[in-house]
Amino acid sequence: MFQTFDVTARPQDAVPRVARLRAWMNEQGLDAFLVPRADAHQGEYVAPCDARLAWISGFTGSAGFAVILADRAAVFADGRYSVQVKVQTDPDTFETVDWPGTGLADWLPGALPKGGRVGFDPWLHTEAELTRLRALTGIEMVACDNGVDAVWNERPPAPAGAMSVYPQALSGRSHAEKRAQIAEAVRAAGITAFVTNQPDALAWLLNIRGSDIVRTPVAQAFGVVFADGSVDLICAPTKVDAVIDHLGPDVRVTAPEGFAALLAGLSGAVGYDPSSCPVAISEALAQPVAVTDPLALPKAVKSTAEIAATTQAHLRDGAAMVRFLRWLDEDRPDDLTEIGVVRALEQFRRDTNQLRDVSFETIAGSGPNGAIVHYRVNEETDRPLAGDPVLLVDSGGQYLDGTTDITRTVPLIAPPRDIAHAFTRVLQGMVAVSRVRFPRGVAGCHLDALARAPLWSEHRDYDHGTGHGVGVYLGVHEGPQRISRVSQVPLQPGMILSNEPGYYREGAFGIRIENLIHVIEAPRPEGGDDRDMLGFETLTWVPIDRRLILTDLLSPDERAWIDGYHATVAEKIGPLLDGADRDWLLRMTARL
Amino acid sequence: MFQTFDVTARPQDAVPRVARLRAWMNEQGLDAFLVPRADAHQGEYVAPCDARLAWISGFTGSAGFAVILADRAAVFADGRYSVQVKVQTDPDTFETVDWPGTGLADWLPGALPKGGRVGFDPWLHTEAELTRLRALTGIEMVACDNGVDAVWNERPPAPAGAMSVYPQALSGRSHAEKRAQIAEAVRAAGITAFVTNQPDALAWLLNIRGSDIVRTPVAQAFGVVFADGSVDLICAPTKVDAVIDHLGPDVRVTAPEGFAALLAGLSGAVGYDPSSCPVAISEALAQPVAVTDPLALPKAVKSTAEIAATTQAHLRDGAAMVRFLRWLDEDRPDDLTEIGVVRALEQFRRDTNQLRDVSFETIAGSGPNGAIVHYRVNEETDRPLAGDPVLLVDSGGQYLDGTTDITRTVPLIAPPRDIAHAFTRVLQGMVAVSRVRFPRGVAGCHLDALARAPLWSEHRDYDHGTGHGVGVYLGVHEGPQRISRVSQVPLQPGMILSNEPGYYREGAFGIRIENLIHVIEAPRPEGGDDRDMLGFETLTWVPIDRRLILTDLLSPDERAWIDGYHATVAEKIGPLLDGADRDWLLRMTARL
Repeated sequence: MFQTFDVTARPQDAVPRVARLRAWMNEQGLDAFLVPRADAHQGEYVAPCDARLAWISGFTGSAGFAVILADRAAVFADGRYSVQVKVQTDPDTFETVDWPGTGLADWLPGALPKGGRVGFDPWLHTEAELTRLRALTGIEMVACDNGVDAVWNERPPAPAGAMSVYPQALSGRSHAEKRAQIAEAVRAAGITAFVTNQPDALAWLLNIRGSDIVRTPVAQAFGVVFADGSVDLICAPTKVDAVIDHLGPDVRVTAPEGFAALLAGLSGAVGYDPSSCPVAISEALAQPVAVTDPLALPKAVKSTAEIAATTQAHLRDGAAMVRFLRWLDEDRPDDLTEIGVVRALEQFRRDTNQLRDVSFETIAGSGPNGAIVHYRVNEETDRPLAGDPVLLVDSGGQYLDGTTDITRTVPLIAPPRDIAHAFTRVLQGMVAVSRVRFPRGVAGCHLDALARAPLWSEHRDYDHGTGHGVGVYLGVHEGPQRISRVSQVPLQPGMILSNEPGYYREGAFGIRIENLIHVIEAPRPEGGDDRDMLGFETLTWVPIDRRLILTDLLSPDERAWIDGYHATVAEKIGPLLDGADRDWLLRMTARL
Repeated sequence: MFQTFDVTARPQDAVPRVARLRAWMNEQGLDAFLVPRADAHQGEYVAPCDARLAWISGFTGSAGFAVILADRAAVFADGRYSVQVKVQTDPDTFETVDWPGTGLADWLPGALPKGGRVGFDPWLHTEAELTRLRALTGIEMVACDNGVDAVWNERPPAPAGAMSVYPQALSGRSHAEKRAQIAEAVRAAGITAFVTNQPDALAWLLNIRGSDIVRTPVAQAFGVVFADGSVDLICAPTKVDAVIDHLGPDVRVTAPEGFAALLAGLSGAVGYDPSSCPVAISEALAQPVAVTDPLALPKAVKSTAEIAATTQAHLRDGAAMVRFLRWLDEDRPDDLTEIGVVRALEQFRRDTNQLRDVSFETIAGSGPNGAIVHYRVNEETDRPLAGDPVLLVDSGGQYLDGTTDITRTVPLIAPPRDIAHAFTRVLQGMVAVSRVRFPRGVAGCHLDALARAPLWSEHRDYDHGTGHGVGVYLGVHEGPQRISRVSQVPLQPGMILSNEPGYYREGAFGIRIENLIHVIEAPRPEGGDDRDMLGFETLTWVPIDRRLILTDLLSPDERAWIDGYHATVAEKIGPLLDGADRDWLLRMTARL
């Protein structure tokens, strides 16, 4: 099993650890020290050696930070983790702060002695973050060694996972071709090189994958892309053994110990992204220039081959999902719990013999647990399904040819009308995004309301974005495109996004319906105008539970879309199934 | 009649005028001179003495500009006016440039001699405009007298319309109260005063109206609002006679001749809006500070009294519209033309005995003329209705208690299915905006797609915004709120907007449906969540032609909204009518 359910937090562990850190701070002449969740790559998953926030505080959430002072300490966590952070941390040691409602700039000035010095590890913080903090507070921020590392006795070693070559048949383009494209952008930006800390960008650029962290098949590394298309790759040389021929002479490998000298030796204006690059890098440059990451958009705009690859991954994953849903519907044991759901689903994906990892920890929320948007079941929260009205399952797989992410909400009993009503409203929003076409220039911020309007009109909403970017055998969350109120990145053909509106009633139930979609140039239909328009094509083909759909709420267009979707599900997934699974699929994909 | 239909353009008039301007330029040592449509107030309508662009070029559009060089001259006009500008200007004198596709910064460097000097009247250009032009071209821009004024022999005098008091029963707040509110914003911005060139802002602030220009009941004036709440009002003292007691001692009147000395005498940091303030003002300040106009949002957020007032105006205007539509439907003469439509509609509004002006020139586009988005009929373009399928009428009235703006598209024959289909799609977009609720923070850019999605999904669109702000007995177009892809101003209760999606098939027909709506705090319905949400309430109550609605395209929610709207139209407008008008209304508002 990739996923585990252990309760790892032992709040009491923090007491001696914080004491040791305070002693270290005292030696260093620091009045406070920052412990962020982030590692030097600012990604979603961190290696065990980088789980400093969890080690010092007990809090295992995927975002947030702690600040330790001589006589106070606080953990900042967002609304997703407001309950979890209190359970996982020792209340006598840590205050918990509702972030970002209260930011560090709001809290720190009141806690720090006048003229106090705040230490931070320059590998874990970006220029954007520090500039803002300094501007808002005027506090003296001191770059220093990492105090947690200094007092963490049995700190795990840095990961040293081997890289592998990502087949060009799946990526569609050689890394030489990609490097030439980025080199052109580097020249256009008037810089001689761009330095990146983003492992997924390097994996995409060099057609490699790694095995340093869970869930995301990347290698932890830094890179410098030059205006001539060559690349310096900074990582432990042992990671590179299996890909050294693939990389060729234009990709030079430097061990981490040589990174400082390499940065110091870069001549001319060197670009970096101030929102993701650690200040340890940007401040080591002789001529730093803040630029927009030239790798972000090219990585997000998938090649035809990448779309073809992930299409196959989605069909395979779709068949596994249907087998799972059929089992859940017809054969689930009476005493099934959420953990049993997660185990069974992972096994159905493993049965494809192609699963490399789950793409994130499966969210299986029964009844009231479904209303916790980022719920991850563990042994303590595990809940039997029996007696609950609906189950929400949000999950995905990592396959060599693609990354999947799908949510289905299924009835466990004959569904009450109010739940079916809410489900239908969520579905209408999801269908609106699936169906829409739009002119070039439209961004996620323009489409977000389409997914919400059916709920909004009934004085309801959901407190998360409508969609995030998704990679191809890379991160299940990637930028820069999103469907959310704030995303101003124009959508371009080749971008993959999730489409996942939801509705949550605290203490009762949660509903979410999620497909992955990709942006296409929309073909002009008969009667359509002579306009250049984009649209979405669906990647995910799994039935949407018809027992939860109130057809009398639907428009003719919505009904036609759902029937058309289900007909395509039957056509694409049916041949991959047999027996009871196939029969169930045909019943579940019948016309409304 | 307020509206006229004369063809005023005589392209040949430009020849001697341009020659005189060039002689003047030569005397001044200028290689080019800019002639914008704008006056010193940057508004939509200008007084005859400020119609410099029309005088020099013949082009009477509501936006654009000319640039005159020694041997070339060009008029820049946008897509709305691409045909009109060619008809109105002399092709041997003026090139016409498709603006903003080609901007002045693109065109001027290729036309100007190397090192050439470009003259401009500093009262007619803003800092934002000049900064951009200078940055993009590096051209020397020279503030000078206005060359057109210098050679315009029979230039009309500046308007000297009398101001009148706007009743507090309609505005809801005294000008002292409003001045105190703005003074607080002035202090919060860290400035000692704010200087404005916006007549509608001054009209709102001081509870006055004017009579200097057509369509918009404002007085041309400048103002300085001080941190103590007092105001300097700069305008011809004769305009103020009737309101001097109303203004009181805290509003000091200065004649235009004293404005320069007044500006020079302002102490401390003085704010101005760089996107609307002429550089003649901002550059006369000792300590200028660019700020967001502190008057714009308070003016846009209407008081309860203003909403109540405009509600009455809309009922009155709605009854006039219904009488007009009934006449058009049942009693129109066989030889009726577009001009006849405009005349009849103005007469129905005049029959209320309360019409102060039309709020803009009525757009009456029959058949293919309906596809010209900003069509204004004149004697040359006038078209008989007979034989056309649909007529688009976009019009509004200025009443003391409110400003209206409504578009209806009506069938002239039994409508072909493709037109009814397009009409229904437009209606679905208009209903989506009318019905939507949304959380605070949502801006027009988030809602625009709701109006377009029904068209977008069929590969169609319209090339104009979905909605603009509207005043109360003020401008029919006012900011800062809009419903468009680029409008990031959060919507607030009290704002009035138009909701006017459309569809246009060139050479065939045009469809637009427009109601005015205002933002409200949405009451929480039964089953609604505990959320603070906003919504829209409709101001315009006039039937939407049911003969153009294809009910089989509608969702149950859309159908219920239309039936509900029509029931309210019957309830609110029915009692204001009798006889044939009332009978027709009841038929047109029956359930679908």
